Amino acid sequence: MVFHLVPRCSARLFWASSGWRRTYIQGASVGLKYLGCPRDTYSPLACRGYSSVSGSPEVMLTPERYPVQRLPFSTVSEEDLAAFERIIPGRVITDPEQLEACNVDWLRSVRGCSKVLLRPQTTEEVSQILRHCHKRNLAVNPQGGNTGMVGGSVPVFDEIILSTALMNQVISFHDVSGILVCQAGCVLEELSQYLQERDFIMPLDLGAKGSCHIGGNVATNAGGLRFLRYGSLRGTVLGLEVVLADGTILNCLTSLRKDNTGYDLKQLFIGSEGTLGIITAVSILCPPRPKAVNVAFLGCPGFAEVLQTFSTCKGMLGEILSAFEFMDAECMQLVGQHLHLTNPVQESPFYVLVETSGSSAGHDTEKLTSVLEQVLNSGLVSDGTIATDQRKVQMLWALRERITEALSRDGYVFKYDISLPVERLYDLVIDLRTRVGPRAKHVVGYGHLGDGNLHLNVTAEAFSQELLSALEPYVYAWTAEQRGSVSAEHGLGFKKKNVLGYSKPPVAVKMMQQLKALLDPKGILNPYKTLPTQA
Amino acid sequence: MVFHLVPRCSARLFWASSGWRRTYIQGASVGLKYLGCPRDTYSPLACRGYSSVSGSPEVMLTPERYPVQRLPFSTVSEEDLAAFERIIPGRVITDPEQLEACNVDWLRSVRGCSKVLLRPQTTEEVSQILRHCHKRNLAVNPQGGNTGMVGGSVPVFDEIILSTALMNQVISFHDVSGILVCQAGCVLEELSQYLQERDFIMPLDLGAKGSCHIGGNVATNAGGLRFLRYGSLRGTVLGLEVVLADGTILNCLTSLRKDNTGYDLKQLFIGSEGTLGIITAVSILCPPRPKAVNVAFLGCPGFAEVLQTFSTCKGMLGEILSAFEFMDAECMQLVGQHLHLTNPVQESPFYVLVETSGSSAGHDTEKLTSVLEQVLNSGLVSDGTIATDQRKVQMLWALRERITEALSRDGYVFKYDISLPVERLYDLVIDLRTRVGPRAKHVVGYGHLGDGNLHLNVTAEAFSQELLSALEPYVYAWTAEQRGSVSAEHGLGFKKKNVLGYSKPPVAVKMMQQLKALLDPKGILNPYKTLPTQA
Repeated sequence: MVFHLVPRCSARLFWASSGWRRTYIQGASVGLKYLGCPRDTYSPLACRGYSSVSGSPEVMLTPERYPVQRLPFSTVSEEDLAAFERIIPGRVITDPEQLEACNVDWLRSVRGCSKVLLRPQTTEEVSQILRHCHKRNLAVNPQGGNTGMVGGSVPVFDEIILSTALMNQVISFHDVSGILVCQAGCVLEELSQYLQERDFIMPLDLGAKGSCHIGGNVATNAGGLRFLRYGSLRGTVLGLEVVLADGTILNCLTSLRKDNTGYDLKQLFIGSEGTLGIITAVSILCPPRPKAVNVAFLGCPGFAEVLQTFSTCKGMLGEILSAFEFMDAECMQLVGQHLHLTNPVQESPFYVLVETSGSSAGHDTEKLTSVLEQVLNSGLVSDGTIATDQRKVQMLWALRERITEALSRDGYVFKYDISLPVERLYDLVIDLRTRVGPRAKHVVGYGHLGDGNLHLNVTAEAFSQELLSALEPYVYAWTAEQRGSVSAEHGLGFKKKNVLGYSKPPVAVKMMQQLKALLDPKGILNPYKTLPTQA
Repeated sequence: MVFHLVPRCSARLFWASSGWRRTYIQGASVGLKYLGCPRDTYSPLACRGYSSVSGSPEVMLTPERYPVQRLPFSTVSEEDLAAFERIIPGRVITDPEQLEACNVDWLRSVRGCSKVLLRPQTTEEVSQILRHCHKRNLAVNPQGGNTGMVGGSVPVFDEIILSTALMNQVISFHDVSGILVCQAGCVLEELSQYLQERDFIMPLDLGAKGSCHIGGNVATNAGGLRFLRYGSLRGTVLGLEVVLADGTILNCLTSLRKDNTGYDLKQLFIGSEGTLGIITAVSILCPPRPKAVNVAFLGCPGFAEVLQTFSTCKGMLGEILSAFEFMDAECMQLVGQHLHLTNPVQESPFYVLVETSGSSAGHDTEKLTSVLEQVLNSGLVSDGTIATDQRKVQMLWALRERITEALSRDGYVFKYDISLPVERLYDLVIDLRTRVGPRAKHVVGYGHLGDGNLHLNVTAEAFSQELLSALEPYVYAWTAEQRGSVSAEHGLGFKKKNVLGYSKPPVAVKMMQQLKALLDPKGILNPYKTLPTQA
């Protein structure tokens, strides 16, 4: 009942420079021979997961844009390089051109100046590397698919980049329990394909699945599209193997649904963004593949009706509800204007996308149909359409998924990803519209309503310090007043580390600092990230 | 959308001395006026959650039975009592008769000699108590419903007992998000009743629900009957309020499904059995109440067929599968012999109980029927019966739930609660039968197959050191060899703390000890529990 993965070299995902459409390049072979590794799909592009915009302006070095001081870590010497070469022969990269891609985040917003990229294949290699770095006081930036949103996955200065890209083996899969054990560098989409052939799915799905690594997903506690149905990684991740700052291997890679022996150490590393240890392997519980998927797209006359529709769906769809997303009229206007997508229902102040995933197509359609009858008859919904065939399902999802792309075509975008009590979710959008007035082109709200997760975006002709000052810290303070989270699913990384205090009390921040000091006393793991700069 | 609880004084659950049948006593009023609290249902019986066996032998003091030395904590002085009286006037209990019930666990297997029981009502009171104890180096034993299985909820020596019994208020409930916030001392069954009226359920259910506190459930990371469907408390608990050893209040009581701001501190306290902090309030995500529940009871010709039936159910029932329990033929023989329960199907080597919970009775019955057709036709199941009406559902569940009672009537019982890879779950039972031979009356296996959780029980005419030596450490070593857990859902408490090393490597144990030293440097919180005795 245990399967072992044959070498995989599957489709890679690139975001086209024009926006968010997916382009699949079969078996990307650029640089395939370069590192002498048959499973390798490394290339300067693949390294950062997304293609760079040809001819786009140089990304400013992070310390030039942000007020950040280099901490007194050692710098990499020739002796260090020789030591690394002994540990991972042929996988110590120092070529500046190749390093460039791993020094810049995919949003092209932050840029480090690391001089060395290490590509271990085994946990033992990671352990030896960290043991050396710890002894030598060398800072290390762990990197998975480099698809993060908050500058957490690239160096700020010259930290050594430790990539999990070559740690991409499935270790085992049990087809009774649905438990998958794999190395941290497995690409999410490849794991999904592996499981799909065995009638299971990953419990998480993300837009960046073609590039992101499962280790990075766990290190950032990724949310994504299946969160409403399958819950948090804190419940589905059963075990982790982690290398600590001093090179010690912590093996908690159990494949057990229940284990109440002592403190659950793996939880420390889930969502700690590589600042407490480097995740090298993951054990995760995978649900069976649903046999039927339906999508309904609905127009609602107001946000109160959106909430009531959510309650109705939860009550009547129950166990088959797998997504409940919402967008406002301005979002629809933008996807129409910039992407020429057609609104499939009557114009409404709000739109809702409801997805069901279940084990019986007939039953699921019947349930969804009766929900739609109820919400239409009671006036909660003014118009709606259902899709069951794959093409129309994708068309409806595109209305929601391509909002980001439409926004990026509208001008400069100020982006916020926050959690709020679901009944206050849209109030901030209304409030901000009044506050910023004509300084903004659009203030829009959309997101994972089922998870209480609002994506709040403000567009303007160009970046404006005045508009920024109107938005921040106002948005964070407003969120804090509602006891919301200033980072729902993206983490803090480098860019948001100093707003932690808006969502966590000083006692909590202090305890986080104590945990960091306990597990990484020299502070070499992903420095300048997650925890606020100390005065 | 926020509801507040009116004073509650509901049914209390007692285990009858003869075994495991539930007896409900409406509005238990013993001692009601005694503490001057209208919500109080305190009595020496209620304190330990279960009635004592009238005339049963005295329970031996823990230090007399186990090799444990008192640590150099202070002893409670008159000044300490006066200080506590100032913090919680009228709620400092020193009467030996009343203390007796809180000093003994419900299994009557361990017994402390605490001289004082404190009954705070608010987090601030808990904080002031711990601040005093920390300053004075006084050890504290947090106590919820005192329904634990491993001696974690009673003092070992004279630790102060801090009961959460009076911290029993619902703080808020949101009927859109299903998020409940309540004090730690709320009784699980009372929360279930509160939610049921609002068409929601608790994400966990336990046999001890009539007595156990939600704070204790979280502190021990309780598993229980809904685990297969709604997952671990690590996913459903959204926030906690905790008082640290020095009295500091850590407020992480958010009501957000997603919050990726810094390390998830609440996870430290889930499952740490009161050794790192005292949980005072809980925020938890509650699922909508299922509209239909069906139960099937099946006979299987072998354990391989049990596993295949589980796979079939997971595949075909998918989202409506809510329990998959198994028991062997010896279990059935014992419930027949001692409790006169009737086997509703043909005699078989194994039996399986499958429960579905869903939003449509018609759909669910249809799905379950087609599963049964498939497993019967393919020979995985030799006979089966379905129940949809409440009475028959309960009758079928009794066959599984009352095994513990039947075992206790069979003689002295050696009990093990372990997690194993699901395909090896029954091998240990077969192995042990050969190993112990005629020294045992019965070696039986049953449990939560869907969670990989085996309840392994060995009965004998009386306690026997020889039999014990044949069982331990053999069972733990066997489990360790399979990378299983020596405590699936019961925790380590006092009795199992020294077997932690069978399931966790020395690196992990050391890190646990470091966390304990960081959060409770004086070691005053629930000492002698969870972590192994240090050499």
